[in-house]
Amino acid sequence: MTTPPAIIWQNQQLQLLDQRKLPTACDYISYCDADSVAAAIRDMVVRGAPAIGITAAYAMALAALSTGSSDNWQASLTAARAALAASRPTAVNLFWALTACDELIEKHPSDPALPQLLLQLAGDIHNQDISNNHAIGDFGASHIAANSLVYTHCNAGALATGGYGTALGVIRSAYRDGKICGVIAGETRPWLQGARLTCWELQQDGIPVTLATEGAAAHVMRDRQPSWIIVGADRIAANGDVANKIGTYNLAIIAKHHGVKVMVAAPTSTFDADIDGTDIPIEQRPSEEITDSFGQRIAALNIDVANPAFDVTPAELIDVIVTERGSILAPNRESVAAHLASK
Amino acid sequence: MTTPPAIIWQNQQLQLLDQRKLPTACDYISYCDADSVAAAIRDMVVRGAPAIGITAAYAMALAALSTGSSDNWQASLTAARAALAASRPTAVNLFWALTACDELIEKHPSDPALPQLLLQLAGDIHNQDISNNHAIGDFGASHIAANSLVYTHCNAGALATGGYGTALGVIRSAYRDGKICGVIAGETRPWLQGARLTCWELQQDGIPVTLATEGAAAHVMRDRQPSWIIVGADRIAANGDVANKIGTYNLAIIAKHHGVKVMVAAPTSTFDADIDGTDIPIEQRPSEEITDSFGQRIAALNIDVANPAFDVTPAELIDVIVTERGSILAPNRESVAAHLASK
Repeated sequence: MTTPPAIIWQNQQLQLLDQRKLPTACDYISYCDADSVAAAIRDMVVRGAPAIGITAAYAMALAALSTGSSDNWQASLTAARAALAASRPTAVNLFWALTACDELIEKHPSDPALPQLLLQLAGDIHNQDISNNHAIGDFGASHIAANSLVYTHCNAGALATGGYGTALGVIRSAYRDGKICGVIAGETRPWLQGARLTCWELQQDGIPVTLATEGAAAHVMRDRQPSWIIVGADRIAANGDVANKIGTYNLAIIAKHHGVKVMVAAPTSTFDADIDGTDIPIEQRPSEEITDSFGQRIAALNIDVANPAFDVTPAELIDVIVTERGSILAPNRESVAAHLASK
Repeated sequence: MTTPPAIIWQNQQLQLLDQRKLPTACDYISYCDADSVAAAIRDMVVRGAPAIGITAAYAMALAALSTGSSDNWQASLTAARAALAASRPTAVNLFWALTACDELIEKHPSDPALPQLLLQLAGDIHNQDISNNHAIGDFGASHIAANSLVYTHCNAGALATGGYGTALGVIRSAYRDGKICGVIAGETRPWLQGARLTCWELQQDGIPVTLATEGAAAHVMRDRQPSWIIVGADRIAANGDVANKIGTYNLAIIAKHHGVKVMVAAPTSTFDADIDGTDIPIEQRPSEEITDSFGQRIAALNIDVANPAFDVTPAELIDVIVTERGSILAPNRESVAAHLASK
């Protein structure tokens, strides 16, 4: 696995791979305060639900480290938390990581070791995510038959996580086991994470990949008959509904129509037991992401634009959700609750 | 209706609106030989099945007009026909127009009036297309209830036809009748005809339009509940299957899932009684249309790309096909044959 890491902690700074420039340039940006990290999340320097969670944890450590005395921690940590929580609304891993930081801060409100404890927590979340992804990969691969063509959307790869990836972790493990003959990657408008990131990641691993537009999904499914759609998730609701990159719900409907199975690969930190799918907040991104390209205006001026960044796929269209703990077949409220109660 | 015409015959030359530059620039290119017109069709200066048919007829007239003596007509008309027939394979209106020219040439093999007769034929095809579109528009509008939100894909507007449009003709007629509260336009990767052309056409007519990516289709259909998907067609098979811009088959499946009805608007010259949907040739366009944008590489180098320009929607997903003769409800082999036999 040769994809460069999305997130590096080095010399008391957070280094984020600028994913907006990939694959043409591979540049890291250094951050030493939480506000700048929140802006980096909002501006898509780093993206992908697990990667955002890890990044937020490091940002909380930065907030404590850059505040001289424990007298000021409360104010600066509260401000940092607020900025990070406002950066992107849909992925729940962000809030999961912030809650883990909250608990640590509550336990050690004026402990001089708090900055180091927060940094340690961020590192643990980071490392745990990588090992979770290997587990997800292996559980997911167990569902895939030999010589399978699979279809993925957006980028749920090493770049979207601490490393190895969720959906691409499953594909990596299945490829290692000799089960994958090829991958179809949807380009994923408007940010083109499929074209820019997923094709690049898979190519570096020598996994054959074919790029297609979202519009070609039904044609390609009929024509090439993939076995599985494999995607990540930004939030999985208590009833098994899955919020993921806009276009996932399309793919799930089209898959059902063609008898193609749908797998969602995500760590348990992606679950939100407090919400049903219909209540998940959907981030609306700026219209210029669609009306402009490379600084050039494409569309007519003064038109309305719908630019939801995510959609919600109902549980009944999903065949299996794979986490680091195993598989939830035909997910619903009961099977999701049972899975989360298990350890 | 204020959209500038896609095709103008003026001063013994063919003027084509360069649709690759819209809506930022509104430039016409002049053509005086058939080979250049064939290249213009291939390179998408002009696009849209009916517009390609009209353009091909004018190109045949140009071939005759630019050949001095009737002794040389046969060779130059044969060469022109071959170049035009090779320009784009999927839209059948092109072949329909060439066949109309063939019949005229056979009747007048060495008539000194042949160039003018071909020009007259092209003008007739052009004018007939405009009046067909008004009829299609009115028949289509009769299916639409008051206060409807409708969804369209690609551009089946004035720019894709002699004028007024097929799918956009239906929308124009329905809007005139006070039935349309808004239109959702898919951006239509990779050429973005929805973003560039359809939004512009509708905006000029004052019809409210919202632009969305193809990936947002299912989310938007659930969220906004349009009444109809309304699209054009590049070829309609004997069994009622419809080849249209890539992404149409997606929309039809997603529409069915949400109880949204599907209307195809096209003149009878779009029907091919000799073929079933599965046998329609699907044009594969260059991979750079997806891997590059505005001359910049987006995707990793040396990856495979699937870039089918069209897909085939099975008749069972279509609620009505509207032509200049009326409506084919729940189209199938029998109802299509009966419609084409009527006059």
